[in-house]
Amino acid sequence: MTATAVVDVPSGTPARVDTPAPGDPRLARLSLNQRTTAEWNLREAIDGAVAAGLPAIGLWREPVAEAGLAAARRWVDDAGLRVSSLCRGGFFTASDPAERARAHEDNRRAVDEAAELGTKSLVLVPGGLPPGDRDLSGARIRAAEAIAALVPHAVERGVTLGIEPMNPIYAADRGVISTLAQALDIAESFAPHEVGVVLDTFHLWWEPGVHTQIARAGERIVSYQVCDWITPLPADALLARGMMGDGHVDFTAFTRAVAASGYPGDVEVEIFNAEIWAAPGDQVLGTMKRRYVELVHPHL
Amino acid sequence: MTATAVVDVPSGTPARVDTPAPGDPRLARLSLNQRTTAEWNLREAIDGAVAAGLPAIGLWREPVAEAGLAAARRWVDDAGLRVSSLCRGGFFTASDPAERARAHEDNRRAVDEAAELGTKSLVLVPGGLPPGDRDLSGARIRAAEAIAALVPHAVERGVTLGIEPMNPIYAADRGVISTLAQALDIAESFAPHEVGVVLDTFHLWWEPGVHTQIARAGERIVSYQVCDWITPLPADALLARGMMGDGHVDFTAFTRAVAASGYPGDVEVEIFNAEIWAAPGDQVLGTMKRRYVELVHPHL
Repeated sequence: MTATAVVDVPSGTPARVDTPAPGDPRLARLSLNQRTTAEWNLREAIDGAVAAGLPAIGLWREPVAEAGLAAARRWVDDAGLRVSSLCRGGFFTASDPAERARAHEDNRRAVDEAAELGTKSLVLVPGGLPPGDRDLSGARIRAAEAIAALVPHAVERGVTLGIEPMNPIYAADRGVISTLAQALDIAESFAPHEVGVVLDTFHLWWEPGVHTQIARAGERIVSYQVCDWITPLPADALLARGMMGDGHVDFTAFTRAVAASGYPGDVEVEIFNAEIWAAPGDQVLGTMKRRYVELVHPHL
Repeated sequence: MTATAVVDVPSGTPARVDTPAPGDPRLARLSLNQRTTAEWNLREAIDGAVAAGLPAIGLWREPVAEAGLAAARRWVDDAGLRVSSLCRGGFFTASDPAERARAHEDNRRAVDEAAELGTKSLVLVPGGLPPGDRDLSGARIRAAEAIAALVPHAVERGVTLGIEPMNPIYAADRGVISTLAQALDIAESFAPHEVGVVLDTFHLWWEPGVHTQIARAGERIVSYQVCDWITPLPADALLARGMMGDGHVDFTAFTRAVAASGYPGDVEVEIFNAEIWAAPGDQVLGTMKRRYVELVHPHL
């Protein structure tokens, strides 16, 4: 086992632990969400995850489509990786009937793709307000209705729909479901294997009472995604996420709450950040492994 | 009465109503929060408000201190303006005892200044996480304790403390109280004339169940502040607020909820936005009056 050179990404934050080598048991639940290394195509992301000794990967539909669904499945199987989740279905909030029908069809395909990739977790990004529409309550109701309409097909394919509540910073343009409490209000109309929730520290770290809501979520947690809330907020709000430890999130308390809920699954690192995307992928994975074993793993 | 030239600020959005002239009864509850015209000093803001026919102004401590407290009071009285609120006390979250003591003293002075300016509403910005501190729950408890410690002095001076819940975009660095529900949980330990809440559409527009919380707030509403949530979010998150109508906020529904609560007070326009600050103040006030009579006033 050779140690990866210690270069922190972004630079400037000192490493506090050695880089865990492949085979380190502390990596047994760590998954690379492939948006963290957005410059890598699927083949590169798989190879990078394997080289880093990770057991799992979170896939995105676009790079999977680029590689071809059958090839993607073969590659992850041959690499011995679990697919911890597929991102993403959703965008449920259109008010135009034709657009809603198109979104429903696309979400059925997303369910099929999740099933064919061998993952049970399909991440649903709720969608924002339609252009010129200011009726947030209406958009929230449409999102809940669209999820309900998708459940039978997901059940048929053995896929659990994971509602991802999103930081209110995205309420207008990306995700009208803003709190874990609100996501659970929707999910609880269904059985836990039908509709669950995705916990992302960036989206939920600020929510009053979030630890109580995590306990409430229990077996409905279909994915635990980690990254940090950094300030000052980067200029592009969509790329505002930070490496764990670089911001304000209390990973100890949040992770303990997730562990106490009984969540047995993988922990995905999902970071949208221009500086991290510009760095070599293997350095990003090195930093990510160190921060994970320092900040997250001890509390799982 | 001469009409102000119709120039919308920011430019590009067509005016839909004529500019209300001084004396127009629809302006009877409209207040200029002086941060909307940040380039104006206090004298200019007072003169600008009077020229625009506004009956009220929301003051900030720094420009008041620059003018001198006695002069400020004399100027607003001579101009016949109400002081709708004073911004701001707060920043309650320090953990260091000496810093906490300093913050308490500064907040006592803020209460005194509010009393001397003749306003009953002191806006409290909760404060963010201390540097390196990730214990959000702890910071929230310290904010509540510091508010409790300030109540006796506020009561003595006849000033109501207005907790301002802030959009979670500021949870780390500015305001750890993130929802109206959370602000009311704190306020309800006190009588309504002791501790109330400040409703700002930018901060609260996304909150699930906010209309129910506004009804719950009732007589505790000490200020209603309006501005818009715009996308894409401007690069500087602190200057991310928009002119009413330029973004995603449903002013109809929000204002109706405020009206239904029985709130009898002024409506402050408070916009932090570099483009608006760069425009001539009288044009900003023209746009602000038009948008207010179009989007807010009909629902009060």
